[in-house]
Amino acid sequence: MHLKIAILAGDGIGPEVTNEAVNVLTTVANARGHVFEYIPLLIGGVAITAYGTPLPPETLEKTLRCDAALLGAVGDNKFNHLPPSERPEAGLLRIRAALGGFANLRPAVAYKALADNSPLRPEITDGADILFVRELLGGLYFGEPRAWHKSTDRAHNTMVYTRAEVERVARIAFDLASRREKKKITSVDKANVLECSQLWRAVVTDVSRDYPTVTLEHQLVDSMAIHLMTRPRDFDVVLTENLFGDILSDESGVITGSLGMLPSATLGGKVNLYEPVHGSAPDIAGTGKANPIGAILTAAMVLRHSAGMEAEAKLIEDAVDEALNEGNRTTDIARGNVAGQTTLATTQMGELILGKV
Amino acid sequence: MHLKIAILAGDGIGPEVTNEAVNVLTTVANARGHVFEYIPLLIGGVAITAYGTPLPPETLEKTLRCDAALLGAVGDNKFNHLPPSERPEAGLLRIRAALGGFANLRPAVAYKALADNSPLRPEITDGADILFVRELLGGLYFGEPRAWHKSTDRAHNTMVYTRAEVERVARIAFDLASRREKKKITSVDKANVLECSQLWRAVVTDVSRDYPTVTLEHQLVDSMAIHLMTRPRDFDVVLTENLFGDILSDESGVITGSLGMLPSATLGGKVNLYEPVHGSAPDIAGTGKANPIGAILTAAMVLRHSAGMEAEAKLIEDAVDEALNEGNRTTDIARGNVAGQTTLATTQMGELILGKV
Ligand SMILES: CC(C)[C@H](C(=O)O)[C@@H](O)C(=O)O
Ligand SMILES: CC(C)[C@H](C(=O)O)[C@@H](O)C(=O)O
Repeated sequence: MHLKIAILAGDGIGPEVTNEAVNVLTTVANARGHVFEYIPLLIGGVAITAYGTPLPPETLEKTLRCDAALLGAVGDNKFNHLPPSERPEAGLLRIRAALGGFANLRPAVAYKALADNSPLRPEITDGADILFVRELLGGLYFGEPRAWHKSTDRAHNTMVYTRAEVERVARIAFDLASRREKKKITSVDKANVLECSQLWRAVVTDVSRDYPTVTLEHQLVDSMAIHLMTRPRDFDVVLTENLFGDILSDESGVITGSLGMLPSATLGGKVNLYEPVHGSAPDIAGTGKANPIGAILTAAMVLRHSAGMEAEAKLIEDAVDEALNEGNRTTDIARGNVAGQTTLATTQMGELILGKV
Repeated sequence: MHLKIAILAGDGIGPEVTNEAVNVLTTVANARGHVFEYIPLLIGGVAITAYGTPLPPETLEKTLRCDAALLGAVGDNKFNHLPPSERPEAGLLRIRAALGGFANLRPAVAYKALADNSPLRPEITDGADILFVRELLGGLYFGEPRAWHKSTDRAHNTMVYTRAEVERVARIAFDLASRREKKKITSVDKANVLECSQLWRAVVTDVSRDYPTVTLEHQLVDSMAIHLMTRPRDFDVVLTENLFGDILSDESGVITGSLGMLPSATLGGKVNLYEPVHGSAPDIAGTGKANPIGAILTAAMVLRHSAGMEAEAKLIEDAVDEALNEGNRTTDIARGNVAGQTTLATTQMGELILGKV
């Protein structure tokens, strides 16, 4: 197999963690006799600096000719003075839109080895295994009209969804749920206030009729923010619109213990987009403190969803498990003076996991 | 003093908990030689049943002639088939709008006695004392245009803010922060994506110049959902737009351990509106399982913000503390077989606290 992967390392710790993910991918490809070709491209703050735009045309064109895109992180406080449409993040939103992936998969899993890293009690998180399916191309992020009118000192954004948009992401969520053990979907909305959410709830309910083996429940976003902390084990696949998914999937990172651990995959478009959930963390860029595991688990998702290599994806996930079980930690998940723990730099953790793959 | 208080008990457990709050108010009034006059009025599901509308004109007119309004809870699954504009919740949103209060104060405090009730570790919550100031009349809740067009299968809502709307709620937050110990405001937005949030951030920053003793920081809503769980002690006053405040203040209920404990006050309008944060919980209505403490602490806020009775408000809060420290619990905060704990029914807890006031 020949797989062409766009490498959009981006800002801050993006390049460091992406590097570790690429090493893992290459090792797997070599072992299996595949060729993974990497196309490094600029996005985010580094692209603004080089070309004055967070998504240069070349980046988009070349990515569209790849089989998958692996992104590190975008965001740089240097550009905070710019309007949203010119910031590093706009590059991310534009490439998401252009690649067309609308179903953003974000697992939030409790690792036994990290049970003491979560602010939540171990008896709460133990066994939690949630898969967020976040709609990624609709809602407030992309809704028009949108503007900040400086003359009238008024700003507005639009939350908008069509039946088709809700249906296609719901189908992916139900498909995924039907192949999981609990076979349960929790759909999140604010249907007691928002018309958008009423449409959302109606469409999700309609789609559920096609999946008789999957149980569907609806939760309001405010209640869900509580339930995820008090009884995370009760959830399986959590289906949300864009902004609710942004907030709740980040919140649920505390189940795992660190945002640095979390991968994501965006499916359904022309080219699947893979990105760790964490941000660019400019404060720790270059210090070796970045956790490459989110990016490495993202690489596993590349194998699973873009290369049909389920067994190999599992190998990587098991290697991560093993590394953690042996007490290896990056700074974000290290706990002061705990016997049997070793704190590793980004590259050390990467190499250690690589050695186990 | 003669204080006229509209009693909007509402649905589910609303009447039960409001009853306990009223008892406490009456006791304080009697002890101080004040007269509190209560005007019971219908709102929410009970108003739909009686008059076909969740906010009958009489309720609104009479409430507008009161000095304060004490609300229990609204919401009844019976009406889930109705569009948002006709549901029980619409009554709440309409009275909020009509009373004009735009600053919704929601404390989230860690009680030592309840340290083991939170899903968060005690060392995380210990000492946490957050005051949310949630903008209550703007954003997606009230923004126009809004609709679910069944013909085109498309729905939209509008998030909208003006400088004036942000400024007035920011001033209340800064005033409150300037009188607290930490003197810190964390303003929450999604300024890397939303124009609304850009305006929000700019206005809050402008307002901060008038409060040199208060420290201001900005956080993105997704990151904030994490920080509130991993380091709640770092926050003091948290200022948010409407929906973000809805989600984050509920989430932060887990710091306290139960939504049933949380009060709220809405200031800045014609008549201040006081409501516990919890919902109508129809499943436990009438079982004696409802926790009246949220409502009782809400009564304390009535005294503080509508009667200038700070000392008496403090008395109630201390009585609640004492009741908890002695091991008294309602079902929501009871922990199975813990020595020294007594589980009380709603009215028992109410009377116990009353006895201490
Ligand atoms: C960087 C930002 C635009 C992005 C989002 O909100 O989608 C990020 O928070 C995420 O969750 O991937
Ligand atoms: C009932 C609902 C409309 C309300 C809201 O979202 O404001 C509630 O969740 C709250 O937080 O007071």
